[in-house]
Amino acid sequence: MDFVILVAAGALLEYVYFGYRVGRARTKYGVAAPAVAGDPIFERHHRVHQNTLENLVIFLPGLWLFAIYVSETIAALLGVVFIVGRAVYARLYVQDPPRRGLGVMMSFPVALILLIGGTIGAFLD
Amino acid sequence: MDFVILVAAGALLEYVYFGYRVGRARTKYGVAAPAVAGDPIFERHHRVHQNTLENLVIFLPGLWLFAIYVSETIAALLGVVFIVGRAVYARLYVQDPPRRGLGVMMSFPVALILLIGGTIGAFLD
Amino acid sequence: MDFVILVAAGALLEYVYFGYRVGRARTKYGVAAPAVAGDPIFERHHRVHQNTLENLVIFLPGLWLFAIYVSETIAALLGVVFIVGRAVYARLYVQDPPRRGLGVMMSFPVALILLIGGTIGAFLD
Repeated sequence: MDFVILVAAGALLEYVYFGYRVGRARTKYGVAAPAVAGDPIFERHHRVHQNTLENLVIFLPGLWLFAIYVSETIAALLGVVFIVGRAVYARLYVQDPPRRGLGVMMSFPVALILLIGGTIGAFLD
Repeated sequence: MDFVILVAAGALLEYVYFGYRVGRARTKYGVAAPAVAGDPIFERHHRVHQNTLENLVIFLPGLWLFAIYVSETIAALLGVVFIVGRAVYARLYVQDPPRRGLGVMMSFPVALILLIGGTIGAFLD
Repeated sequence: MDFVILVAAGALLEYVYFGYRVGRARTKYGVAAPAVAGDPIFERHHRVHQNTLENLVIFLPGLWLFAIYVSETIAALLGVVFIVGRAVYARLYVQDPPRRGLGVMMSFPVALILLIGGTIGAFLD
């Protein structure tokens, strides 16, 4: 389970880094708390962070189920794809929001495969 | 644990569906990313998705604790109520936000019962 | 594991309480759903709730890993610090957002220590 835990922690630390960039953008673009709107670049960072949270809630239980009931190795490998996909998503979203699709396609379906595969695996177990 | 896992996955897939509707509403009502405001119907879909995330963070650990320490069958049945309650919530919220109360009452207290019941169960175990 | 579960449930119930205060602020400051902006005090309550969600996603897996692979007692004690830190954060944020830093420092690094410590513990195990 070690590599699966490392991948889960990696995805969470990537999420922490996205949160750090939201804080930095707050200062840089002058968006004082509690506002989360007002500057388009700040809003992009904020949405990257929020959307990654929305993905993690599917990814983490999926990773865990898949690792237990299907394969730890495949779970860990899919998890690495998810982390890379989220990095691509963050980069594209901040550069130009309409181009973020590639990053979505590299991460969200991976979370879905882990969840559905893990659930099927639990039933066939 | 199979049915509990199926219920957990069901609640997460319902959440994925709510997210899909946010994306569709983005196009339909012309709310371009990163904005999450500007059209009242889009905002309703967005809040359904967000509020379900807020509920899942309580529901999923509660479901898991209740299944381990109290009863898998009752956990799974309460989980089904939660999923149906969230569907009612989504429908009412999008139709008319002030009417969403019934959907809240059918889902949020269920998550709370699972969490508190599961925690008590762990202590009595 | 009993005290670790109690601490996890405590952090989640604190989060539920923050959510209750968002609902109360909705009525008090006249911010009708689906809006989440429009009154600065409401927005502070909303951000306390959201930011606590963002923290819980790191805290809960971290608490769990740390309890399994490092120490249940230390995990539970750090969890208590996190809960107190979040209460400080909520109080300061609602009073005066720029002063919230102490509450951040009392909670977010604790979540990070649990996650990183638990992951290292899993590898040394």
